[in-house]
Amino acid sequence: MKYGVRNSFKGKVKEIKKGTVMCEVVVEVNPTTTITSVMTLDSLSELGLKVGDEVTALTKAIHVILVKE
Amino acid sequence: MKYGVRNSFKGKVKEIKKGTVMCEVVVEVNPTTTITSVMTLDSLSELGLKVGDEVTALTKAIHVILVKE
Amino acid sequence: MKYGVRNSFKGKVKEIKKGTVMCEVVVEVNPTTTITSVMTLDSLSELGLKVGDEVTALTKAIHVILVKE
Amino acid sequence: MKYGVRNSFKGKVKEIKKGTVMCEVVVEVNPTTTITSVMTLDSLSELGLKVGDEVTALTKAIHVILVKE
Amino acid sequence: MKYGVRNSFKGKVKEIKKGTVMCEVVVEVNPTTTITSVMTLDSLSELGLKVGDEVTALTKAIHVILVKE
Amino acid sequence: MKYGVRNSFKGKVKEIKKGTVMCEVVVEVNPTTTITSVMTLDSLSELGLKVGDEVTALTKAIHVILVKE
Repeated sequence: MKYGVRNSFKGKVKEIKKGTVMCEVVVEVNPTTTITSVMTLDSLSELGLKVGDEVTALTKAIHVILVKE
Repeated sequence: MKYGVRNSFKGKVKEIKKGTVMCEVVVEVNPTTTITSVMTLDSLSELGLKVGDEVTALTKAIHVILVKE
Repeated sequence: MKYGVRNSFKGKVKEIKKGTVMCEVVVEVNPTTTITSVMTLDSLSELGLKVGDEVTALTKAIHVILVKE
Repeated sequence: MKYGVRNSFKGKVKEIKKGTVMCEVVVEVNPTTTITSVMTLDSLSELGLKVGDEVTALTKAIHVILVKE
Repeated sequence: MKYGVRNSFKGKVKEIKKGTVMCEVVVEVNPTTTITSVMTLDSLSELGLKVGDEVTALTKAIHVILVKE
Repeated sequence: MKYGVRNSFKGKVKEIKKGTVMCEVVVEVNPTTTITSVMTLDSLSELGLKVGDEVTALTKAIHVILVKE
């Protein structure tokens, strides 16, 4: 299985916040790093996600903004 | 300075690949993790980015896809 | 502070509509122009945004679609 | 004709920069504001865009990041 | 009317799920294919969408991820 | 393998156009429908894609714009 994306992180689901149509899923990549995803409740349901599940978080390079302070 | 995004990573520019309109910038977050951004050459020029520069990489939660294997 | 994006607009927060997970923030750029952002309530909270605050709205060129009528 | 997006700006094409696969189109909304779009050369060709053409630039609210300085 | 996007599909609105700020609209492209869009309730209201309406669904090529299994 | 996205299409790679940093990949879903993806050449290389390969094209519902004509 290969994904055509530049950014891919493995982690465990740490928290799921459900709204009425959307939800927010926090993934712990390591003790000091989390990645958060927003998706529809329908997608959450299809994934069958629950806290503790192992997932891979993907994001395309084009969606990353760099800031120089 | 605060950004309205869920995902923010500090790192150093490791590599810059220039195309004719777009470019690809690889940021080293830690020895085992990189994050890649694609932007226009115009944005790269405005940032004045070069290898070794410290940057913050931002991506909204909505742009993150979770995959369960 | 520099952002690696082509589109950047300064304005004042005009309205905030809160949902259960997401919210919608309307920014007045000038008397005839507004720009609207959708983000998580978590991001809104981190920004500590309230009506009247000065903000900068950013969007990458790749997220802009042109239509010819 | 109606678009399901929060952000819509009318303007005139001011500049087109062609790459090998992608291109960058700068749209002048008013004398002090431009909006830039990146698209494929294929899309540019289908639109038949040239400098001076009137276009509408669309972007969804979810693609807008707010920053508080 | 021409759109500067690579992916465009005509269909009929099959279902609308309303949340508090966002909504989810399912479009039937043909008997075996649907495309789903998430937008703000404000955009839904502006479009005046109801089940059965004919719409065109647009997505830029940059937003499509390819996976090889 | 499950993806947290609303829109998923299986097809075969029909054409690959390479630029200097980015590339455009056209996927034939059926005789009358194609879906196009833009990614970095690095992602193309990692996928090892060639014409005829079977792939799945993914896009989140939030990236789909509906238009009513």
